[in-house]
Amino acid sequence: MARNGVIAPGGTIGILGGGQLGRMLASAAAEMGLHAHVYCPDDDLPAAEVAAHVTRAAYEDEAALARFAESVDAVTYEFENVPAETARILSEHGIVRPGARALATAQDRHVEKSFLASHGILTAPFADVADEASLKAAVEKIGVPSVLKTRRFGYDGKGQAKIAAPGEALPAYDEIGRQPAILEGFVAFEREISVIVARGPGGETAAYDPVENIHKNHILDRTLAPAALSQTLADEACAIAARIANELDYVGVMGVEMFQLPEAGNKRRLLVNEIAPRVHNSGHWTTDACAVSQFEQHMRAVCGWPLGNPRRHSDAVMTNLIGDEVNGWERLAAEPDTAIHLYGKREARPGRKMGHVTRLYPLGKRPPVTPS
Amino acid sequence: MARNGVIAPGGTIGILGGGQLGRMLASAAAEMGLHAHVYCPDDDLPAAEVAAHVTRAAYEDEAALARFAESVDAVTYEFENVPAETARILSEHGIVRPGARALATAQDRHVEKSFLASHGILTAPFADVADEASLKAAVEKIGVPSVLKTRRFGYDGKGQAKIAAPGEALPAYDEIGRQPAILEGFVAFEREISVIVARGPGGETAAYDPVENIHKNHILDRTLAPAALSQTLADEACAIAARIANELDYVGVMGVEMFQLPEAGNKRRLLVNEIAPRVHNSGHWTTDACAVSQFEQHMRAVCGWPLGNPRRHSDAVMTNLIGDEVNGWERLAAEPDTAIHLYGKREARPGRKMGHVTRLYPLGKRPPVTPS
Repeated sequence: MARNGVIAPGGTIGILGGGQLGRMLASAAAEMGLHAHVYCPDDDLPAAEVAAHVTRAAYEDEAALARFAESVDAVTYEFENVPAETARILSEHGIVRPGARALATAQDRHVEKSFLASHGILTAPFADVADEASLKAAVEKIGVPSVLKTRRFGYDGKGQAKIAAPGEALPAYDEIGRQPAILEGFVAFEREISVIVARGPGGETAAYDPVENIHKNHILDRTLAPAALSQTLADEACAIAARIANELDYVGVMGVEMFQLPEAGNKRRLLVNEIAPRVHNSGHWTTDACAVSQFEQHMRAVCGWPLGNPRRHSDAVMTNLIGDEVNGWERLAAEPDTAIHLYGKREARPGRKMGHVTRLYPLGKRPPVTPS
Repeated sequence: MARNGVIAPGGTIGILGGGQLGRMLASAAAEMGLHAHVYCPDDDLPAAEVAAHVTRAAYEDEAALARFAESVDAVTYEFENVPAETARILSEHGIVRPGARALATAQDRHVEKSFLASHGILTAPFADVADEASLKAAVEKIGVPSVLKTRRFGYDGKGQAKIAAPGEALPAYDEIGRQPAILEGFVAFEREISVIVARGPGGETAAYDPVENIHKNHILDRTLAPAALSQTLADEACAIAARIANELDYVGVMGVEMFQLPEAGNKRRLLVNEIAPRVHNSGHWTTDACAVSQFEQHMRAVCGWPLGNPRRHSDAVMTNLIGDEVNGWERLAAEPDTAIHLYGKREARPGRKMGHVTRLYPLGKRPPVTPS
């Protein structure tokens, strides 16, 4: 199926991970005439029912991984915590996009922040924590308030502990299980924004306009598209995201979370918080407000298709449906100009992302933020 | 799953037919948190890979039909030629939407046109043809030029023969295999339009704005949304479509094809050409230009959800990719503001619908028709 490195309609794309992101990737692949093959160890598998093929196996199952890799034209993934060994095995059999460098960088907060700092991209002040001695040194260097974060496997506020006073450092270290960590200085910011950027194998990039993200209980609650930024700041945000993608020789869609600092006293006002080497929750609105969604855009990049135009035809507010918020589906379905997306998960556990809605507004008519 | 007749997320919808319409219905169901179960005898099955469950069996297989019906909360279909006996068997086991009356009416051109005429809705002049004698009488009554059409199973110009002079009547009758037919008078029209209307089980209706359809070799080539109609005519078209849905006690989405007659000499300017008791090719643009597509709208109606607002956020031109036109996918993917939809069919046979693209334009900015 691959002709000049392009995976044409009729080709098969392997997707590691069977959650809602894998599901939306699989649906996008189908709309492009591609076949999706989802690989996932889990049982409750939102992606399975919209994918052409499913392999249920562990990420450590070498034989299953080899069979999977041989059955597809390229492999991509819905989450950054793909074990390095899994990625290595798959790479031996064919194309894995995004590549190993992006995975290794985004999987480890210390590697990620060091990478950013080495390219002159602003981050929160940080220090490595490997033991009690380096913890003490980190608190002295970074000060308080600060946040101790595990280097790996943190998401939605998990693997994090605040340190308000130096005496809280050891209890916080215990709280995160004394895992390898970084200590991050608190940053006073005006808003959190993110940029969804795509990069193709030829190096071309395309970024959707920056959006603003509002969290509730450390979980994304709403995304406002576009963020209320000056054109200069918006352009700068997109340029930073594209630069990161270029430096990582990235192929696919990437989410870059940033903090916008207050004007007063800050020469540079955008600080990168986190890189997600995958489609991102803050890009879900693109399905309803752009001709080409982030999911299709990711598949286009992975397959070497021309990138879609990231132009927005509507403004949008995306709201996640967390836990039993999904029970409000009938009221939401009755709202005009609201697109509803449910993930088909069996159990609405607290904190679990069960779906989202996108409310559409004419360009320039997005309402200001309302308290949640 | 059905509570007060509503099929909630987590429910399962059966879909008869596994072509591109079934595929887009199944995808829409998944986005609503419903599970799709596709039933189809064919092998090359575009719908299968995006559906949760698939039954490959004949429409005459009573045991398979019964198992299928018992496994779903409601049954719908992608095509009007569901055998009456199949529909009857399924109805015995549960809900089939749209119902038997809509199917029986739309399956037979004579029944359909008689139904319309009996409700005072304008159609082309027509006469029943059952044998040589009634053919002769029909030609005398309707005159020439006219078109002989089989009562059943015609689509995309199949089962039709033109009669330019009375002497061509018998050869035309032979050409359509002497099947039960109607003779239809030629109508001089300005444009073909269609209305995609939805009706819920409570009788509420919602119609997308009328669109203009342009055919090539008797197959839909392009749909222009919206059609360039006066508000009065657009309202009248929507009212006719809603009236038909009401008279049939219809549940689901229906396509109503109409001819717009020239102003001169015609008191009433809208004539109904055909009813399609299903989602319709001329409604594909809604996926990209509305918050709720015709496919989701159909599922909403079938499941008793609130109907979506049919408002358009963009103007649109939908173009079918017929046969090897699909080979132009890479050029089409490079166009800005163009949404590409490929059906995953294995073989690009001449005349086969392989996909479509929707080009989006800001409201009021749809370009005028250009020659194909």
